Amino acid sequence: MEVLVPFSTDRPKSRLSSVLDPAERAAFARAMLADVLDAVNAAGGEPRVLATGPVEPETECPVEVDDRPLTRAVNAALSDRRTTADQPVGIVMADLAIATPSALRELFDAVERAADVSIAPGRGGGTNALAVDHPEFHVDYHGASYRDHRRIADEVDATVSAIDSHRLATDVDEPADLAEVLIHGEGRSAAWLREAGFALDASGGRASVVRK
Amino acid sequence: MEVLVPFSTDRPKSRLSSVLDPAERAAFARAMLADVLDAVNAAGGEPRVLATGPVEPETECPVEVDDRPLTRAVNAALSDRRTTADQPVGIVMADLAIATPSALRELFDAVERAADVSIAPGRGGGTNALAVDHPEFHVDYHGASYRDHRRIADEVDATVSAIDSHRLATDVDEPADLAEVLIHGEGRSAAWLREAGFALDASGGRASVVRK
Repeated sequence: MEVLVPFSTDRPKSRLSSVLDPAERAAFARAMLADVLDAVNAAGGEPRVLATGPVEPETECPVEVDDRPLTRAVNAALSDRRTTADQPVGIVMADLAIATPSALRELFDAVERAADVSIAPGRGGGTNALAVDHPEFHVDYHGASYRDHRRIADEVDATVSAIDSHRLATDVDEPADLAEVLIHGEGRSAAWLREAGFALDASGGRASVVRK
Repeated sequence: MEVLVPFSTDRPKSRLSSVLDPAERAAFARAMLADVLDAVNAAGGEPRVLATGPVEPETECPVEVDDRPLTRAVNAALSDRRTTADQPVGIVMADLAIATPSALRELFDAVERAADVSIAPGRGGGTNALAVDHPEFHVDYHGASYRDHRRIADEVDATVSAIDSHRLATDVDEPADLAEVLIHGEGRSAAWLREAGFALDASGGRASVVRK
């Protein structure tokens, strides 16, 4: 399955600005992108980066540049694919630093076997990963998009499979999310954080991070 | 499988004190407990509440009172079971308000089929649900217990299966967690929150809650 991985080259990960400076945020975003591309490849997907500007991923991967906002760029890409092939398409966010091949395989398998659309909700109601095999489904990433995507699927009579995965629910946006990368990550993102001096602080209720 | 559900009757859910008063926290904790007991039953488990004081769950269920701290009470219960039966035991936290029967079934199946211990990590590195079929494994819920439980399993040569579930990773401790209940919950906890005036606020990056 072709899997689009949207990636913003323009001030990525601004909500991490309290713990990482702009150059660090860019480097960490690239490490997460590489982890996601590796996981998609290992899950049997064929990743393609859908970037807002030129980028050379650390993992070799074709890149398509589209500087439009996320929703419009993804809908244009979905529309393109429909005119050229009747194949399912995946859309996996570039900051799923602890995504595993098995969780992604479950997402892909769901549309290859049963549902028209499979959705992995993110924490806080976003849509972290999608697989789509329906001619009319479109995306709308604004706000709590998980519910909107379920509604859109209903409106076009597309069956939906929700993928229950902590790995896929964890998009790395805020400092607290870095703890998940240190706890579960085994790839470049976790290595990057450790190299940058981050460590787990398990003194409170939920683990957070400290930086040396 | 017998499934212990530890429940604190003494000032439950104090980290929700900014949005719920003590009586509300107690009522909401009971609603979550009932949802968890329902999910365990639906998953084929036999729940038993392990409470720090007397409680009458809204869903009929045997209650065992043990006022010792969580780790000691659970280890004593595990030890009791070992002397009377060589059966796996589950331990599922009482605040997993969006736990589904299918996610719990995966947890139980993992020890019935393959592993000595199955663990569902919580957000922030806690241990939200466990199933244990090993004579020497014991718990230690202090701090980031997911890693500690993996280490304890290693030390006693117990094989481990990690359960990747957003539903089981979501323990409801902090106000932001209430959004997950409103997004995904279909039981008493979600109904209780709606009745109490909580609604989803999807205006920011991740959805949060507002109260009318």
